[in-house]
Amino acid sequence: MNELTKMGERAKGSASVLAGLLSVKKNEALLAVAKALRQHCGEILCANALDLEAAEQNGMSAAMKDRLRLSEERIASIADAVEEVVMLEDPVGKVLGGETRPNGLQIRKVSVPLGVVGIIFESRPNVTVDCAALCLKSGNACILRGGKEAFHSNKALSDVIRGALCSAGLPADCVQLVPDTSRETAREMMRLGGYIDVLIPRGGAGLITSVVQNATVPVIETGLGNCHIYVDEAADVAMAVDIVDNAKTSRPSVCNAVETVLVHEAVAPEFLPQMKERLDRSNVELRGCAETRRILGDGVKAATQEDYAAEFNDYILALRVVRDMGSAIAHIARYSTGHSEAIVTGSYAAAQAFTGAVDSTTVYVNASTRFTDGGEFGLGAEIGISTQKLHARGPMGLQALTSSKYIVSGSGQIR
Amino acid sequence: MNELTKMGERAKGSASVLAGLLSVKKNEALLAVAKALRQHCGEILCANALDLEAAEQNGMSAAMKDRLRLSEERIASIADAVEEVVMLEDPVGKVLGGETRPNGLQIRKVSVPLGVVGIIFESRPNVTVDCAALCLKSGNACILRGGKEAFHSNKALSDVIRGALCSAGLPADCVQLVPDTSRETAREMMRLGGYIDVLIPRGGAGLITSVVQNATVPVIETGLGNCHIYVDEAADVAMAVDIVDNAKTSRPSVCNAVETVLVHEAVAPEFLPQMKERLDRSNVELRGCAETRRILGDGVKAATQEDYAAEFNDYILALRVVRDMGSAIAHIARYSTGHSEAIVTGSYAAAQAFTGAVDSTTVYVNASTRFTDGGEFGLGAEIGISTQKLHARGPMGLQALTSSKYIVSGSGQIR
Repeated sequence: MNELTKMGERAKGSASVLAGLLSVKKNEALLAVAKALRQHCGEILCANALDLEAAEQNGMSAAMKDRLRLSEERIASIADAVEEVVMLEDPVGKVLGGETRPNGLQIRKVSVPLGVVGIIFESRPNVTVDCAALCLKSGNACILRGGKEAFHSNKALSDVIRGALCSAGLPADCVQLVPDTSRETAREMMRLGGYIDVLIPRGGAGLITSVVQNATVPVIETGLGNCHIYVDEAADVAMAVDIVDNAKTSRPSVCNAVETVLVHEAVAPEFLPQMKERLDRSNVELRGCAETRRILGDGVKAATQEDYAAEFNDYILALRVVRDMGSAIAHIARYSTGHSEAIVTGSYAAAQAFTGAVDSTTVYVNASTRFTDGGEFGLGAEIGISTQKLHARGPMGLQALTSSKYIVSGSGQIR
Repeated sequence: MNELTKMGERAKGSASVLAGLLSVKKNEALLAVAKALRQHCGEILCANALDLEAAEQNGMSAAMKDRLRLSEERIASIADAVEEVVMLEDPVGKVLGGETRPNGLQIRKVSVPLGVVGIIFESRPNVTVDCAALCLKSGNACILRGGKEAFHSNKALSDVIRGALCSAGLPADCVQLVPDTSRETAREMMRLGGYIDVLIPRGGAGLITSVVQNATVPVIETGLGNCHIYVDEAADVAMAVDIVDNAKTSRPSVCNAVETVLVHEAVAPEFLPQMKERLDRSNVELRGCAETRRILGDGVKAATQEDYAAEFNDYILALRVVRDMGSAIAHIARYSTGHSEAIVTGSYAAAQAFTGAVDSTTVYVNASTRFTDGGEFGLGAEIGISTQKLHARGPMGLQALTSSKYIVSGSGQIR
């Protein structure tokens, strides 16, 4: 039995303990984790310094180093986030439905933990703690596999979490960090059937594609976002400018940022120049179709098919003037990753038609795509944004980390 | 672009038509299908005769031939089943939740079709019609890949369905049958990402394992059932005998039949002989542990680990005497496929502990495992029984064929 399989065994054992725990016990453990993070701040920062040193030597970009860097304040805010999870409702043990059948069988459908959740991530070290806390609250054991760059930080964080779990009387193996960051181990984790009930990749397109291609355990695809805003002929132009500006420039690196704006030809001559003036303030590079360039001038680059397919995650925006809403919907059906799309319109009929026809996790009328987020949706926390249709779609809160089982109470019924 | 990808393209196109259809329109199409099945009964029987002839030449077993055989009555009952689907509630367009956020955003979570459902099956030809009807009702296009043995029958049935869809003004490509039954095409179907939103295998362990190992599209595992009944020390022995007899002999070939009975040692001397007497009437072969054989005599075969792991689907039952309920639960955790398990007991505490600790789709107290079925659960119809934890668990009705999307209505909100 290899190391990962042993981890799987231990995770399963811990999961069966976790599944039976009262909320109060899980919350005590979470509070112990938050406290321990604050207490062991120094050790965590030392480990983080090792990662930062390696990052320096490897010539990591300043933006990436900033993502990697922990500080006393950041650790405090990570601990705060754990305490916020304590305040959330326990998603386990809810009666989701049921009935008494004509033969007297009493059927109840009850929410239960998924069991063992695997998470492969490549982002900031805080993901280690976030995921561990959400899994713990939902009664799931987790196996975490973070990126190479943050290994020492992740190790220190998971050691602190495991120590706190022990002190709270829970098995440390409720939370396990994969002890190496090789591709082989990641592949093995993707095929750990019988141990991992669901695998959630969190990261860029490369990671997610690799998981989808290689996993034999059930996967939830997350977070690829080529999002669109369609500015309808009946749009309030000032509102459209505000929304596009917000959706592009408030945080271009995230998955709910807009990447392409589609503009009805009737409103393009008025809208596009105002939009450009606003986006110029943030130095957004525009790439447009022929009609866009006719209106805005040749200073705007020509957009390619690749541009329309791209998730720029940057201060770049693709533009296309369309003949009608049908063309906008067809463009979205072709290029979207199915994350978030918006229409800006004053027309009831257009709003109805757009929200009906566009098949994405979230479809907005007169609002920024940036709202697709667990916190903004009132879910309290987020384990990721599912862009697949199975199990969960859109921002995933604690409920997405549960399954269900039927409990059937009889009095000797046979069939 | 190969044939299967073209089918995927056509399915996607049909799915977007289906997603927007009113219930009344879908129901009209279903009624047209039922009518056409009755009208074209002769052609369907001719095609079925070809399959039966080949079966004869290939030396297919009588039981298998019976599963394959259609008749006027069977076709009428298949048509009846389609009409029953008409009566079911439309699972699409339900508001599943939502709220108005503090910033005024109105969030609604609405049920939508999955899109394109792939089904690989190896059972009776009626599955073609059942699956097509359930997918149609839930607004999904489907790509069906049936077994080689039933190819002519499946082809005739799908031709009739497609003709009826056309006559009802729907795209024929809402329902497509894969035109060859090679393994290569099945493999290709498992990797048809971007076209198939979910793949559901219906068949034996070999098929399901192959799909889980090879698919890159999301899969719902169905129907493997190594089910257990635990006869507690506080069991009503007569009730336990009735339940075990029903769960084993009413239909041994199905996935919710019991395969192993675990017996508390305190009740074993009373229960086992009575059970044996009853099961002898149906010529059930018993395979037991040492203690079982001490009580029932050496006429009972010794059970191996393989027996405990087996889904016999036959008149064979494994037996094990256990020291206490904890041992029974541990046995189940080790050998069960997580389908259905039951406890027979008069003890409230035992019932609570067993239903809490056993992690299967359905856990019964004092009832036969044979009730795990969409019809028996009041779902009206069943596309399969999910034994995985993601998306759906247990009997899957129409709701399991839907996903959801968020529709967010704003008035210019930015973040």
